Amino acid sequence: MVKIEVPHNHPRKVSLDIRERIIEGHSRHEVATAGLLAHGRGEAFDYLLGETTNESAKHAIQVAVAALLTAKHPVISVNGNVCSLVPREIVELSDITGAALEINLFYYRKEREDAIFRALKSAGANSVLGTQDRPSETIPELSSNRRKVDSEGIGLADVVLVPLEDGDRTEALKAMKKYVITIDLNPMSRTSVYADVTIVDNIVRAIPLMIAAAKELRTKSEEHLQKMISDFDNDKNLAESIRFIISRLEQLSTNIGLLREKNDTGVRAS
Amino acid sequence: MVKIEVPHNHPRKVSLDIRERIIEGHSRHEVATAGLLAHGRGEAFDYLLGETTNESAKHAIQVAVAALLTAKHPVISVNGNVCSLVPREIVELSDITGAALEINLFYYRKEREDAIFRALKSAGANSVLGTQDRPSETIPELSSNRRKVDSEGIGLADVVLVPLEDGDRTEALKAMKKYVITIDLNPMSRTSVYADVTIVDNIVRAIPLMIAAAKELRTKSEEHLQKMISDFDNDKNLAESIRFIISRLEQLSTNIGLLREKNDTGVRAS
Repeated sequence: MVKIEVPHNHPRKVSLDIRERIIEGHSRHEVATAGLLAHGRGEAFDYLLGETTNESAKHAIQVAVAALLTAKHPVISVNGNVCSLVPREIVELSDITGAALEINLFYYRKEREDAIFRALKSAGANSVLGTQDRPSETIPELSSNRRKVDSEGIGLADVVLVPLEDGDRTEALKAMKKYVITIDLNPMSRTSVYADVTIVDNIVRAIPLMIAAAKELRTKSEEHLQKMISDFDNDKNLAESIRFIISRLEQLSTNIGLLREKNDTGVRAS
Repeated sequence: MVKIEVPHNHPRKVSLDIRERIIEGHSRHEVATAGLLAHGRGEAFDYLLGETTNESAKHAIQVAVAALLTAKHPVISVNGNVCSLVPREIVELSDITGAALEINLFYYRKEREDAIFRALKSAGANSVLGTQDRPSETIPELSSNRRKVDSEGIGLADVVLVPLEDGDRTEALKAMKKYVITIDLNPMSRTSVYADVTIVDNIVRAIPLMIAAAKELRTKSEEHLQKMISDFDNDKNLAESIRFIISRLEQLSTNIGLLREKNDTGVRAS
């Protein structure tokens, strides 16, 4: 693998640095090949969102954390992309909310499970559910190899955070009556529209904000948190996210020339 | 590599089948790892475009073919993604327009060059430029390994078709005063905004339409084709493509519930 140094003045520097983490995760066998394509889809939507956390996402983050804090048995589902992008942050969120970590792979390979297990352990995780040696149960899904959940993890959970999740899995979790929270840059994905709370944001920005929210919200009353949850309307949240993208596109479409100036890297001048 | 059979009723079947071709191209060493991410970005924009060729793209296809047919020295640049997705079609377009094929890699590896060379040859290409044994010259670029062009190919060309191209390369080609045609699903990418003609469409749909357009336009007069080219405004074309995406998003944002029904795979019902 040739590593390309991204020049500091490159217009896509932040996005390219995050991309580098996914590619490194792939070479450590944490990320499936399909996970690289999924990351690419996320990059496109993040570009449309202006690569910032908008107000709808900030609100969804508060509600998501309230749901994790009030849950009887919250679980955070971890796949290869999550593990490569935010290993320490996901362990910290698990610690602060009391949510168990469960490895959950679309394309199961023992090698991938082991790589993710090692990465979570070295990021400080005490306990990791969902490994092949653990008790498991099958859940009904349309397709994919990922029909199993940990009997003491997602099998038992009332609230599940499934960031960067596939639509089949999300529909299956809803069919099991779980309260589903997701982080997804595409507000129109099946996962986004089937979840109870969708944080339309880059996981790299969202998880640190969830940690901060948990520190604040754990001092609030159960009643206060329950009201935050019952007041939340995910369809409204998703519609706001789509309208945010529309307003960005409207700005861009009015002046393509401006896009050239903004993007200018100096190559043409040299 | 575990090959997943996509169920016929899967809501994303066409897109998943194309994805399979890129993943296979990656395992044949034609596609770079970064090319998988790029394909993912394309998938996201294609989704926003409704996975159909819109009127702006059809118009851009006509103009692009007119430019190839009237060029003194047209060249089609081929990278790993292009080769994996449309090997036979790109050779047919080269034959019908008289444009030379040149291999052009962002992440150069001899293994990749060889794999693409083999794929083009077995797709029926007579001559393939841009290989390491060929005369080359360096062009100024911001970054990347891809600083070379074939002296008798892009080096000499007046019109270059660079589908699925990186922004640095496109800016460099414009700095060299080439007339640049691209196929790019993101109407706001640097390549899209710097090119002279941007076909905002999936290459899998666009190249067959270009072949059909070439069969029709080669019977037209030089004057007719030149007028098509001079009448074309790429900024207007890109703005129309962005507005097409906006209108799709506006429809979707008004009824998220509809998106759930449309997406329904039957898992929840089972």
